[in-house]
Amino acid sequence: MQIDPSTLSRRDGYFLMISAIVPRPIAFVTTMSRDGRTNAAPYSYFTGVASAPPSLLICAGRRRGAAAKDTQRNIDETGEFVVNVVVEEIMKGVVIGGTDHPPDVSEIDLAGLETVPSAKVGPPRLAGSPVNLECRRKKVLDVDGTAIIVGEVVWMHVRDDLLVEPGPGGSACAIDVERLRPIARLGGDQYARLGEVFEWPGK
Amino acid sequence: MQIDPSTLSRRDGYFLMISAIVPRPIAFVTTMSRDGRTNAAPYSYFTGVASAPPSLLICAGRRRGAAAKDTQRNIDETGEFVVNVVVEEIMKGVVIGGTDHPPDVSEIDLAGLETVPSAKVGPPRLAGSPVNLECRRKKVLDVDGTAIIVGEVVWMHVRDDLLVEPGPGGSACAIDVERLRPIARLGGDQYARLGEVFEWPGK
Repeated sequence: MQIDPSTLSRRDGYFLMISAIVPRPIAFVTTMSRDGRTNAAPYSYFTGVASAPPSLLICAGRRRGAAAKDTQRNIDETGEFVVNVVVEEIMKGVVIGGTDHPPDVSEIDLAGLETVPSAKVGPPRLAGSPVNLECRRKKVLDVDGTAIIVGEVVWMHVRDDLLVEPGPGGSACAIDVERLRPIARLGGDQYARLGEVFEWPGK
Repeated sequence: MQIDPSTLSRRDGYFLMISAIVPRPIAFVTTMSRDGRTNAAPYSYFTGVASAPPSLLICAGRRRGAAAKDTQRNIDETGEFVVNVVVEEIMKGVVIGGTDHPPDVSEIDLAGLETVPSAKVGPPRLAGSPVNLECRRKKVLDVDGTAIIVGEVVWMHVRDDLLVEPGPGGSACAIDVERLRPIARLGGDQYARLGEVFEWPGK
């Protein structure tokens, strides 16, 4: 089947793209407004960028509802955000955070998510997430109204039992992904657990 | 465990980031140089960007002091590339494409990958990949020497048996992700198959 994207509605383009680019890691992003209101929203147009210094990006669209707008506005205001890696234990919060709520409603309170202070940035991190990446905004690129927000990772928290020392490839340490048990986002309302893991040395 | 990224070597930053942002979809990217040499290389710092028009991005890093990789140079020259979605049947090609070869060596030939002409762009697409997204470069952002390459999807090929019509959420169509059986990239040399899929309606 051949599809000409220029003939697709925004909705059709969205559902095709989120079912073609799979499985996607989920960034559950916590932010804080200038006046101290916290927000949490999930982004699965999310990936790493570079290693030195470590950086990552999320793509924040404009039409995905109030929660998404809060995240972007808060990052505009403060330049700071925390990426909380998603595991099954905080999935209820992810679904609530991905639903539209007014700016004065904290998805963190609504979902009963426990937060703890971050080390280097204002927004809190989520206690239920085993890996928290504290970020400062580095660059923002607009693409048809979507903001590609690049953040530099300025501090990392990794739950002790997940850290492998030394890591692979001569590295000092890495995260045990099978023990982490991340949840991925697919198309529609679908999510996936990690399936069978295999190694295929390439270099 | 707390980690201060400013103390990490490039290698340590790399292995921590690729094990923290998981599982990642894999873009097996085919390109063609101005003089017609084809190339295929996998990128897992890869995600969607926006829906109207559909767009996506890959992050193309380079080793310190090294020239841009073939993929990036070819996109610089022609502005075109094809994202081939990765399934088990082309994994051998992905591993070969991810290994360093001189510019005059075609990873496509080396891995015995069958190509077919694209509809709208010069680089061929991979016959063994069930979803091919033909792209034209739209914007490029440099982050510490890594190029974030944003492409507009100008044509899509989806294997007939994967298309669900209508799709979820009132859309015209979408891809059946469980039938697609994508392979994801994790940390180290690890890859993963799709695990248990579940729905969690959010909106």
